Amino acid sequence: MYYENFQTFTVDVKNAVAWVTFDFPPVNVQGQQMLADLNALAFRLENDRGVKVVVFQSANPDIWVCHYDTDLLKEMPTEAIARNEAKVLDLQAVCERVSKVPQATIAKLEGMARGGGHEFALACDMRFAARGKYKMMQMEVAMGILPCGGGASRMARQAGLGRALEICLSARDFDADEAAAYGTINKALDPDEIGPYVEKLANRIARWPAESINATKRMVYESIDQPIEEALKAEAYWLYQATSHTPAVKRFQWADDNGAQFSLDNQKNWEQLVLDVQDVN
Amino acid sequence: MYYENFQTFTVDVKNAVAWVTFDFPPVNVQGQQMLADLNALAFRLENDRGVKVVVFQSANPDIWVCHYDTDLLKEMPTEAIARNEAKVLDLQAVCERVSKVPQATIAKLEGMARGGGHEFALACDMRFAARGKYKMMQMEVAMGILPCGGGASRMARQAGLGRALEICLSARDFDADEAAAYGTINKALDPDEIGPYVEKLANRIARWPAESINATKRMVYESIDQPIEEALKAEAYWLYQATSHTPAVKRFQWADDNGAQFSLDNQKNWEQLVLDVQDVN
Amino acid sequence: MYYENFQTFTVDVKNAVAWVTFDFPPVNVQGQQMLADLNALAFRLENDRGVKVVVFQSANPDIWVCHYDTDLLKEMPTEAIARNEAKVLDLQAVCERVSKVPQATIAKLEGMARGGGHEFALACDMRFAARGKYKMMQMEVAMGILPCGGGASRMARQAGLGRALEICLSARDFDADEAAAYGTINKALDPDEIGPYVEKLANRIARWPAESINATKRMVYESIDQPIEEALKAEAYWLYQATSHTPAVKRFQWADDNGAQFSLDNQKNWEQLVLDVQDVN
Repeated sequence: MYYENFQTFTVDVKNAVAWVTFDFPPVNVQGQQMLADLNALAFRLENDRGVKVVVFQSANPDIWVCHYDTDLLKEMPTEAIARNEAKVLDLQAVCERVSKVPQATIAKLEGMARGGGHEFALACDMRFAARGKYKMMQMEVAMGILPCGGGASRMARQAGLGRALEICLSARDFDADEAAAYGTINKALDPDEIGPYVEKLANRIARWPAESINATKRMVYESIDQPIEEALKAEAYWLYQATSHTPAVKRFQWADDNGAQFSLDNQKNWEQLVLDVQDVN
Repeated sequence: MYYENFQTFTVDVKNAVAWVTFDFPPVNVQGQQMLADLNALAFRLENDRGVKVVVFQSANPDIWVCHYDTDLLKEMPTEAIARNEAKVLDLQAVCERVSKVPQATIAKLEGMARGGGHEFALACDMRFAARGKYKMMQMEVAMGILPCGGGASRMARQAGLGRALEICLSARDFDADEAAAYGTINKALDPDEIGPYVEKLANRIARWPAESINATKRMVYESIDQPIEEALKAEAYWLYQATSHTPAVKRFQWADDNGAQFSLDNQKNWEQLVLDVQDVN
Repeated sequence: MYYENFQTFTVDVKNAVAWVTFDFPPVNVQGQQMLADLNALAFRLENDRGVKVVVFQSANPDIWVCHYDTDLLKEMPTEAIARNEAKVLDLQAVCERVSKVPQATIAKLEGMARGGGHEFALACDMRFAARGKYKMMQMEVAMGILPCGGGASRMARQAGLGRALEICLSARDFDADEAAAYGTINKALDPDEIGPYVEKLANRIARWPAESINATKRMVYESIDQPIEEALKAEAYWLYQATSHTPAVKRFQWADDNGAQFSLDNQKNWEQLVLDVQDVN
């Protein structure tokens, strides 16, 4: 798998983590080139079990991804359609495809992310933002539309209805601390903390088996799209999908053989134990 | 459209914002008069694209809306029914109708809101509460029933299951800070902050096109009532509902013509840009 | 109903609260004995309207419930299955059964709870954790599986998608404050506060009618598993289930007779009023 020849970002794979750095001057606009690149990236990731985590960051010190290209928006259709005629839009399709890659995905937000840029961040599994640098806004309502790159669909899945409505209706900037309080990002971090935090998290997840990462993330997503009774059965489905490809049974045998579970010292030490067990394959 | 002749509140429309002030001494009880008034208000709002935001506040310095009228509750049926016999209750119907008006709705909570009063607040799009003045409680479980004005249905859509369960099962008071921490309100604000905060927000939203406000809010609500795949298609449906009535295309053309997207200065200035673009119709 | 002869915990019923104390040295492992005990406990609770609240606590000063027994996991099937072949797993079935008992359930977390231990906590209605003593982790992804005792299904119902994904994918420890910020617990409390807080809450809820506790909790759970329109009808269903068994009508009559609703003093006093009304049966 080669991660080359992209126009809008570079990809650096290190220790099973793909570091994707948006670098499309002047403002990392989300136009046809970026969507094509993200689509091509997703295609490669879908078929690569060697890469286990993807971090999206930016080479621009002020901007992560600015927003969807207004050039494309000014040619939008202006005819109302019936419900059953509605089809998935380009930006939605790319975001949803990235959302479903088998890798864990992290948006490392050290600059502005508005409109479709923020909607792409919402399509990542996790989001961390730098205080003083991050700004988020959904400005669509003011332009005469709505966040339709998945933003209106995904906001309340992170933040609850009332806060999702304020974000989508106010078309104002939210900084990192307010975004964390509202739940659209996992955490607000100081600018010198965010790098180490994301690096540690990415490298940690990259130690786990590719198939259990995929099963875990897919199941968390689908959990809230079905009643609890069905979700529980889906967990069982994903369990056997995972165990058919991972050394789970050997690892539990190892845990058992090493008395992992019957000593208080071991119980205090699970953060390290899960690293030690990675040698069992 | 006239917003007059209500018994339990007054309505003052200013700059496309309807300020609804509950004023029904002694305690702003939620009885037949208030429900009839809210129903009549909703009917007018449904057909009025000139009003774009509705703020619900109170003339009573201690109480927003106290709770549902116990006079009505003491005559409730006491026969269990089958699932398929269940019909929407009066209070639910009014709350749901208000929840679906095309305007953005804001509960400005500077006093107590319990039982059905709080359930009505939950049916608004956004909620802000004043520290030291706001108290919220669902007391129904203690009376022998459950929050059945939409409260049991809406609580976890704001606060997550565990906190929704504590609120509905404890029948205790929650103040503004605890409500914000639990997620039932957007923000706790100091008593002298809440007025300016809500006024600024209401007037800001009132600048946007009526049809994009409606599309945005309806889509956020329906997003969590369907799987993500269906929600994305619904976004596309609402997109064209909006563009068929709003100057969206011209506004994106304007953004393009004015180089909105290709300068860092403009990128830093989106909060103002979305106001400037309102002249393009 | 007798709450005796359990191997892994003791049960002490006091003022309609069942205090369940895990006591299964050395580490309160969640093996066949504990699952059998919890299943037997649930069976008795389902048929006991005298007990109205259940608190799960631990006699071990360091550990609440450590995790699922690795002995059982090392014999897991390793064949992938089709979606329609998926059946509810043992741990899921027990957790779901406890989740549905008619009593309000509280996890009083004064020690570590990882893997299946934490998944059992998620199956309780409410969770409170002690600062400095509580640690939570889902380590499954590192072992080659996923949280499949209901954890992957329940996490986002508490914490939103992004934080649920970080918890399930990072396999790291979360302390009480971080868990509260992420929403998996209701509150983080100091070690000397958690006892009084839980005792007061449990004894308060235990004053309410058994049938309204059941109706309230069941409705909150099912609210997010169906569209709002259906949820509202379900509220009406549960309302009449409750009123057919509780003195609701008499209590609202009492409130009315005692002028509960038309005095500001009474409005300020609802926390006490709902206790006073318990004498009306």
